[in-house]
Amino acid sequence: MEYNVGKPDFNILRLGHIEYLVTDLARARDFYVDVIGLFETERDDDHVYLRAIEDREHHSVVLTRSAAPGVGHFSFRVSCEEDLDRLARKFNDLGCPIRWLAPGEERGQGRALRVQDPLGFQVEYYASMDQAPWMLQQYHLHRHGCPTRLDHLNVLVPDAQKGFDWYTRELGFYCSEYTQSAPPEDKVYGGWLYRKATIHDIAVMTGKGPTVHHAGFSVLEPMGIIRACDALAAAGYADNIERGPARHGISNALFVYVRDPDGNRFELYTGDYLTVDRDQVPKRWELDDPRRQSLWGSPPPRRWFEESMAVMSLETGEPMPTAAPLSRAIPNYVD
Amino acid sequence: MEYNVGKPDFNILRLGHIEYLVTDLARARDFYVDVIGLFETERDDDHVYLRAIEDREHHSVVLTRSAAPGVGHFSFRVSCEEDLDRLARKFNDLGCPIRWLAPGEERGQGRALRVQDPLGFQVEYYASMDQAPWMLQQYHLHRHGCPTRLDHLNVLVPDAQKGFDWYTRELGFYCSEYTQSAPPEDKVYGGWLYRKATIHDIAVMTGKGPTVHHAGFSVLEPMGIIRACDALAAAGYADNIERGPARHGISNALFVYVRDPDGNRFELYTGDYLTVDRDQVPKRWELDDPRRQSLWGSPPPRRWFEESMAVMSLETGEPMPTAAPLSRAIPNYVD
Amino acid sequence: MEYNVGKPDFNILRLGHIEYLVTDLARARDFYVDVIGLFETERDDDHVYLRAIEDREHHSVVLTRSAAPGVGHFSFRVSCEEDLDRLARKFNDLGCPIRWLAPGEERGQGRALRVQDPLGFQVEYYASMDQAPWMLQQYHLHRHGCPTRLDHLNVLVPDAQKGFDWYTRELGFYCSEYTQSAPPEDKVYGGWLYRKATIHDIAVMTGKGPTVHHAGFSVLEPMGIIRACDALAAAGYADNIERGPARHGISNALFVYVRDPDGNRFELYTGDYLTVDRDQVPKRWELDDPRRQSLWGSPPPRRWFEESMAVMSLETGEPMPTAAPLSRAIPNYVD
Amino acid sequence: MEYNVGKPDFNILRLGHIEYLVTDLARARDFYVDVIGLFETERDDDHVYLRAIEDREHHSVVLTRSAAPGVGHFSFRVSCEEDLDRLARKFNDLGCPIRWLAPGEERGQGRALRVQDPLGFQVEYYASMDQAPWMLQQYHLHRHGCPTRLDHLNVLVPDAQKGFDWYTRELGFYCSEYTQSAPPEDKVYGGWLYRKATIHDIAVMTGKGPTVHHAGFSVLEPMGIIRACDALAAAGYADNIERGPARHGISNALFVYVRDPDGNRFELYTGDYLTVDRDQVPKRWELDDPRRQSLWGSPPPRRWFEESMAVMSLETGEPMPTAAPLSRAIPNYVD
Repeated sequence: MEYNVGKPDFNILRLGHIEYLVTDLARARDFYVDVIGLFETERDDDHVYLRAIEDREHHSVVLTRSAAPGVGHFSFRVSCEEDLDRLARKFNDLGCPIRWLAPGEERGQGRALRVQDPLGFQVEYYASMDQAPWMLQQYHLHRHGCPTRLDHLNVLVPDAQKGFDWYTRELGFYCSEYTQSAPPEDKVYGGWLYRKATIHDIAVMTGKGPTVHHAGFSVLEPMGIIRACDALAAAGYADNIERGPARHGISNALFVYVRDPDGNRFELYTGDYLTVDRDQVPKRWELDDPRRQSLWGSPPPRRWFEESMAVMSLETGEPMPTAAPLSRAIPNYVD
Repeated sequence: MEYNVGKPDFNILRLGHIEYLVTDLARARDFYVDVIGLFETERDDDHVYLRAIEDREHHSVVLTRSAAPGVGHFSFRVSCEEDLDRLARKFNDLGCPIRWLAPGEERGQGRALRVQDPLGFQVEYYASMDQAPWMLQQYHLHRHGCPTRLDHLNVLVPDAQKGFDWYTRELGFYCSEYTQSAPPEDKVYGGWLYRKATIHDIAVMTGKGPTVHHAGFSVLEPMGIIRACDALAAAGYADNIERGPARHGISNALFVYVRDPDGNRFELYTGDYLTVDRDQVPKRWELDDPRRQSLWGSPPPRRWFEESMAVMSLETGEPMPTAAPLSRAIPNYVD
Repeated sequence: MEYNVGKPDFNILRLGHIEYLVTDLARARDFYVDVIGLFETERDDDHVYLRAIEDREHHSVVLTRSAAPGVGHFSFRVSCEEDLDRLARKFNDLGCPIRWLAPGEERGQGRALRVQDPLGFQVEYYASMDQAPWMLQQYHLHRHGCPTRLDHLNVLVPDAQKGFDWYTRELGFYCSEYTQSAPPEDKVYGGWLYRKATIHDIAVMTGKGPTVHHAGFSVLEPMGIIRACDALAAAGYADNIERGPARHGISNALFVYVRDPDGNRFELYTGDYLTVDRDQVPKRWELDDPRRQSLWGSPPPRRWFEESMAVMSLETGEPMPTAAPLSRAIPNYVD
Repeated sequence: MEYNVGKPDFNILRLGHIEYLVTDLARARDFYVDVIGLFETERDDDHVYLRAIEDREHHSVVLTRSAAPGVGHFSFRVSCEEDLDRLARKFNDLGCPIRWLAPGEERGQGRALRVQDPLGFQVEYYASMDQAPWMLQQYHLHRHGCPTRLDHLNVLVPDAQKGFDWYTRELGFYCSEYTQSAPPEDKVYGGWLYRKATIHDIAVMTGKGPTVHHAGFSVLEPMGIIRACDALAAAGYADNIERGPARHGISNALFVYVRDPDGNRFELYTGDYLTVDRDQVPKRWELDDPRRQSLWGSPPPRRWFEESMAVMSLETGEPMPTAAPLSRAIPNYVD
């Protein structure tokens, strides 16, 4: 297993934002703001721009009015404008569709590069975004779970090795932990990959894809997970709590998975560790070790593996076609 | 529905202790002390006497070496010696088997009355017990979940109305919350019944009985539940975490259900409310309302309903025969 | 030291409510509701009626528009109407001023008895109050510290032995913990006295009196204390945090003391223990043992001892005159 | 104010470890292990090597037997061996004393460079260290506050601008937050400076120096702070709790400051934010703004400013001479 091998000429800093497609914009806004505790920066007829309490930028979530749920695009922040040009050359050379967004074409954001990447995802790269008021110490305005930031994304692809190689070899991501099938096969099931010094900016797992499994939001402390569940239940969203709370083996985080009113999935997440030493040997887990997903022994429901969010074509705006996983996608401990 | 109607001539103060039968005494001791965080007061060849951090008495749990798991007896504390005599008369009049225990016959305990009650449980009444060092502020010795006290017992009987009436009419228990089938049937499924000012000293539910479903231990605060799960998992007991953590509708408590190495069940529990106003109208829940058991929407596994702990005959020491429930014992939201 | 000696012919159940006098009713309402997290039941031109999330009654706090801060009255709930008559006879026999309030004269409350008690406090006794919506599981509406109930009151009197005797001998209160000067003097400095099964409904301490030192509100769990401090600070009330957070030796509670915008004092409090066994020997502390007030070793500021809230005359509505303490009121560990 | 201006030819990754000098090695070991919750990796006659639960390396704390308390040295990890050579050249050019440590000369550590830096501190740079068992998920062995990692160091120097420039211009540190005197003077009082993506690896403040003010250990969640205080108090160390718990304005962390049995100071710390975007404009605080040090309004005691830990000469092993601060070192809100 090779990891930490890419040396690209650009510098991806971190995951930036996610665009959730929602069928009822007002309902989605109320859910994410009043129940989950994100803050609204701005809105127009078709979009609501949201940020979390650690965010200093205009948005880390965009809700976009749409005919069907899914993920419009997601983005990474790069270190400078020149990185955008270098990335454009790379995607051009790969024959991937690209589109430049002028400053402000996405609200609050500078010049940006949208691409359909080789894995089939619509990804945006940007270097600058407007600042917004910092809510971190506006404690009197915090609500319930109160996410601190968009921490990571988890995506499904039919061939996880290909996804792993794309991020580590081509984009310079580091690996904190990974899952393989049992020896001697040792086939990659998933990798937890980072640029910023946490467990991951993106995890790439085996599954029907390209699809997005979930976005993960950090919360300040464990009670944020408990308060989020209580608030969801009290507001009538008990059935939207899909899995947890429990403790992940991978990442060590306390978590709960939630579906928004459109069925889009996200995770609330706290208690992982820093990954400052990029030369640290990644931690290996076996696919069928149940502690991998939950230290506390309660496996995910089957639908956690079978359902994920459609992603969109840059050229048509329609959902990308998906392919079945090339290897086993469901651990043997799932009913 | 009648409740709070009994005016007995004795005064039951609270639940006292539970005797768990265990097949490997050393293993059980290490589990309850090192992982769960109870404190050992004393032991002999066949028993380990445990207490929680709020306890000032010699024990609230007895582990007894036995050929098979189960619950030997459980006890209630009464206000004075005379109450014991009044209770003895009552059980004699009812034709129930009784046995007097001399002071010290159960370690650390004064004179006590053991009975086989009309529901089939072996119950002990006592008025005094030796004091033991109070661990409440010995924080440097606290471990993991660190139970504060034995809070309540939950028992199963074939006819919950009979159990409800026994405790409320004959023993003077008050009702905080209860579960019924839907109108117009309105059949009692279970009652949460108290003498001390919490939700319950005992809950009586419909099921194969007489059996004990679980004992409930309070913990100081929600993180005690999280730490207990983490410690259980790390110590190799992930599979012993049976249900939760989640929030009960009934009682409002955050909980997790755990099986000890012999399969005996207990609950760690925090966040209920006081029941000082005994004239408060009890809260009614419908059997098939899933929020009743879990506000967060994840129903218990079927085995949570189907498995419970055998109770013992006062006369033979053998498990009491059980009978099937007289009415439906499993809500329709359980798979 | 004698305790638990009174056998009155009435049954006081618990502390009921407190009336805070405030000079700016709107400002006080916003403070207690938006920042502290109490809920408004009802208001009129001169009063705002508040309750906490465990409360099922109309109010546990009344804010009353007034020319100066202080405590108008506080109340105890009794078990029945007849208790009120028995109490009226008692206070009449003692020559204390009394006044009957007709049902509804205090909003939401049944017939009530107001007295000026022998210690100089204006105390109300009531047996019934209107029910209000229960906020306990309305988690989506909970804010910040989110008090669960009015737990206790702490009052100052010049002669603590007299106050101790009044509550224990005449009103039937039990003692959980108490403070004395060092042997051989063993003079009572304060007593923590209860009717409901917690550490106290009222504490009586030595000081300039009659005055009220603080009301104590329970919060659900320790993070409620942290969130309350954060919310207070963020809302501009950092200077209103007077002492703590820290852990009391007495009661074992985690606490913070807060002054409202008028300077009225209250405590947020969590983590005490149940007092079900009324025959338990009370825990003795020595006045000059710093662990008594704070296990963590940071003594209260001097003003915590020197400032307290005026109480009102039943007959004139004016503040009651106060007298200096008859014995030392400030421990030697205070600067 | 210039920040983020240095582009050195070496790459400092993060703070590595701190060496505390202690007069009673066994007492110090028991304090840091049994009460604070660090783990012992190894010991010899004169040293105990400790690590925290996130650590994968041999040690992040060394306790060294010594005639007097203080800080022997502290270290930074660099990205590769060549960085050590580059740093050696730099310090040679500056005329600073240097000394090479052979691999293993400090237990578990590879080749290392010790220097007396231009500010007067004995600093060690290393690129590799032996791995030790990872305690992160050994929850059954976690105790009390249970630090996750050595997060940062806070040092005092007479001229904070000089210290700020050294770290930002010469060593490539970034600034997250800083404190200045009021305009128009705008004199730097202190800077919070990082290489890893947290608020700081080192803070440089104005004071009698060179001295070390404290080391900061992260804990997993806020209850770790509370449990640490409770365990300290119960183990007889209440007087060692010097300041807090409270919430910092700078960094947003919940904190408590503790003195070890020798008087060496450290902080337990949780709830800061990530600093991934190195181009983020640092947050400015004014020296006399009390929210800077504590959002909750309780200022530090004067001794928090006046006492700090001696640092040692690389050449003589004796304490370095100190100089008084060149500008005001104590805010006007301190008594």
